[in-house]
Amino acid sequence: MKILVLNTRIHSIEFELIEMPQETPLARGVIEKIGMETSILNYEPSQKKKLKTVEPAIDHARAVEIIIKTLVSTEHGVIKNKDDIAAVGHRIVHGGEKNKESTVINEIVKREIYRCIELALLHNPYNLKGIEASEKTLPGIPKVAVFDTSFYRDMPDYAYMYALPYNLYREYGIRRYGFHGISHMYSMQCVSEIMKVSEKKLKIISCHLGMGCSVTAISNGVAVDTTMGFSPLDGLMMSTRSGSIDPEVVIYLMKVGWSINDIHACLNRQSGILGVSGVSDDMEKVVNRMKEGDKRSKLTVDMFAYQVRKYIGGFYIILGGVDAISFTGGIGVNSPVIREAILKGLEHIGVKLDKGRNEKTIGKEDKIHAKNSKVKLICIPRNEHLLKAREVYRVLSKKLK
Amino acid sequence: MKILVLNTRIHSIEFELIEMPQETPLARGVIEKIGMETSILNYEPSQKKKLKTVEPAIDHARAVEIIIKTLVSTEHGVIKNKDDIAAVGHRIVHGGEKNKESTVINEIVKREIYRCIELALLHNPYNLKGIEASEKTLPGIPKVAVFDTSFYRDMPDYAYMYALPYNLYREYGIRRYGFHGISHMYSMQCVSEIMKVSEKKLKIISCHLGMGCSVTAISNGVAVDTTMGFSPLDGLMMSTRSGSIDPEVVIYLMKVGWSINDIHACLNRQSGILGVSGVSDDMEKVVNRMKEGDKRSKLTVDMFAYQVRKYIGGFYIILGGVDAISFTGGIGVNSPVIREAILKGLEHIGVKLDKGRNEKTIGKEDKIHAKNSKVKLICIPRNEHLLKAREVYRVLSKKLK
Repeated sequence: MKILVLNTRIHSIEFELIEMPQETPLARGVIEKIGMETSILNYEPSQKKKLKTVEPAIDHARAVEIIIKTLVSTEHGVIKNKDDIAAVGHRIVHGGEKNKESTVINEIVKREIYRCIELALLHNPYNLKGIEASEKTLPGIPKVAVFDTSFYRDMPDYAYMYALPYNLYREYGIRRYGFHGISHMYSMQCVSEIMKVSEKKLKIISCHLGMGCSVTAISNGVAVDTTMGFSPLDGLMMSTRSGSIDPEVVIYLMKVGWSINDIHACLNRQSGILGVSGVSDDMEKVVNRMKEGDKRSKLTVDMFAYQVRKYIGGFYIILGGVDAISFTGGIGVNSPVIREAILKGLEHIGVKLDKGRNEKTIGKEDKIHAKNSKVKLICIPRNEHLLKAREVYRVLSKKLK
Repeated sequence: MKILVLNTRIHSIEFELIEMPQETPLARGVIEKIGMETSILNYEPSQKKKLKTVEPAIDHARAVEIIIKTLVSTEHGVIKNKDDIAAVGHRIVHGGEKNKESTVINEIVKREIYRCIELALLHNPYNLKGIEASEKTLPGIPKVAVFDTSFYRDMPDYAYMYALPYNLYREYGIRRYGFHGISHMYSMQCVSEIMKVSEKKLKIISCHLGMGCSVTAISNGVAVDTTMGFSPLDGLMMSTRSGSIDPEVVIYLMKVGWSINDIHACLNRQSGILGVSGVSDDMEKVVNRMKEGDKRSKLTVDMFAYQVRKYIGGFYIILGGVDAISFTGGIGVNSPVIREAILKGLEHIGVKLDKGRNEKTIGKEDKIHAKNSKVKLICIPRNEHLLKAREVYRVLSKKLK
C-alpha cells in the first residue's frame, strides 16, 4: 500500500511516497517558492537519480500536480499510474481540542481545521490548501489528517491550562496545545525500539531542537507536558523566536510605542538565537563564532543550553524520573557541542555522556550515553513522513477491521 | 542602635522599630488608606497595648509624621524622642542594574530609583515618596535603601537574559531582574541558622508563596535564578497574576480587540488563583471550596502545586542538587494542603514530608521533613523588616570601619 504524505506550508510542499507496512521509502522531495515563477522541485527517488528543476507552481494545487506528474514519469517516476497511490497523509499543525486522533478527512474535520486557523495563521490555511489540492488531483482515495497537536490529547488539565480567567479558555480556546507532536511521537517510537522496551514502560524527555524548539515529557506512551503552548512561540528560545518571556514585556513595548505587528515580528522573527547573538539564526554559525571568541555567541549558546537543561529538570521532576533523553531536529542531531552543553551538570540525575560517541554522532541515529549511564541518551534524525505514513496506515487498517 | 524600617506602598506604610544588633523588636505597625480621610493606624508596641485608630494621613509625609508621633507618645510610645532613631531603612522594589547592594541614600541613588520608575510603576514612585517623607520628618540621620532586586546581583547572564534582540536589553533594560529578594534572602539566612550550616555551603530552593509568588534558586549564598522576571508578573501563577504565559496570548488578545490596558488589568488583577477558580484570590478559600467538591477550585490547587513543583525541578537541575526547600509567604506558611500538594512526587530527589509536622506547622517557623529526608523542608514566616534592619546595620557598621 503506497502512501503519499504531504507537509504543505505557505510557500512549499514536502512530500514522500512510502510503501506500507514495509516502511520502504520510494521517493521524496520538496517544491519550494510556490506562487513564484521560479518554484523549484527537489526530487529524490530511492532507486533513481536525483532531480532538481524549475517547475513554475502558481499555487498549491499546481504543486501537487507536479509532484504526481514526477512520481509517475517514465524517466524519474517510481509508480506507473497515480492510481497506485492508495492514500494521502496530511500534516495538520493545529487540530484544536476536538481532533484528538489522526483521522480520515471529511467535511467536519475540514471545518474544525478551518476553525483553528486563527490559532495557527502561519500553518493551518496552507495545510487546508494542501488538502484541497490533493482532493482535486487525487480524488477517490482516503486523505488522512495527522495532527501535530493530537499527541498532547492526554495532557492533564493542570499542565495545559494557563492561569488566566477561565473564560479565556472557554471563549477563545486559550490553553497550552503543544506542537511538534508528530516529531516527538516518532522520537518516542524510536527510543522504544532502540531500548527494546515498550513505550508504555518508559519515561522519556524528548528534545526537538531545530528552527523551532520544544521539549516534551512522555510517560507511558503519553505526552504529559511540553514547552510550546498556545502557539509555537512559547517555551524554549529558537532560531528566531524568543520562547517564553515575561508577558509584561509585550505590554511594556506597547506602552513605549511599538505596534502590535512590530512586536509580533520581533518575537517571532528577530529574537532567539539570531536576536541574542546578532550573528545568525543558524546555531552552527553561532557556535563557530563562539569558538572564535565572540561573547554574544557564547551567551547565546549558554542561554540555549541552560534553558533546555531547566526544562529537562522540570520534566524530570514531574515524570518522577527519566529513562531516556532524546535529541532530534537540526541542532539536536547535528550539534555535539550543544548536546554536551545541555547535558553538562546532569550527573546527579544519572546522566553520563560518552564524549567520544557524542562527537561522532552527527546527522544519524545513535546512542551517545556512557555504558554506565542510568539515563539513555539517543539521537534520532527526524523522519516525520514515516510517522505520518504509519498513522495513515494505522487509521485505514482500523477502518477496514 | 534603633533602626526604623519602612515599606511604603501606594496607599500604605508598614513600619517597624528594631534595636540592633540585638534584633529586639520595639514596635511595629501599618498605616493604611493613605490619602483618604479614613486612614487607619494599626500599631503594636512589643511591651504595651495594641492601638487601632483613625488617623487622617493626607499623604506619605503626614503618615510618617503620625508614625513618629506614635513612637514617641507618652501613652503608646517606645522611645522618648525622635532623636533616638539612629537610621531609617527603606524597602525599594526596583534598584535596576546599578544598585547591587543596600546603600546609604544620596541624590545619585535617588536618581537611579527614579530612573527605574517605569520598570516598577506600582512600587518605585511610592518608595520614593517614603524616602522624601523620612528626609523631611527625620533629617540628619542616614537613610538606607534595601533593594528587592539586589539579591539577584550575581545571577549569571544566561539566566537573566531573555532571548530577545540584544538591543532591547541595552536600550530598554529588558532582562530578568527578580523580585522578593529581601524575603528570599531572609529565608536563606534562617535556613542557614536552623540547619547550622553556613549559607555558603547550601543549595536552597526558596519558595515565597503569598499574594505574589516566586521561587528562587540559591547556591553558595547567591541567588542564581528566580521565576519573576522583567516584572513581578513572570513565573508562577499568583493570587491575581497569571505568571508566565505564551507571549503570543497577549498579541492574540490585542488582535481580537482588547486594549492594552484591559490586557494589563486581566493579567495582573483578574488572573491567577482568582481567574482559574472564579472563587477568590485567597488560596485558603479555594482550598475549602475544593474540599466541598468544586472542580475549578481543584484545578486551581493542582495547577498551583504543579507549577511550583516544575520550577523546583528546573532549579534542582541547575543547582546540581538541593539541601533545603523553604516556604514563606501567606500560602507557604499557612497552607499545609498546598505544601503537601507541591512536595508530592518528589521522593526521587530525596524529599520526604513528615505529614504530621506539616499539618501542625501553620504560621510558624518549623521543619516539616521526615527524619530520613535527604532534603530539609522548612517553613519560615516572613520577617523582612528584620532583614532590612540587618542590612541597615551592616551598611552603617561597614561605613564606620
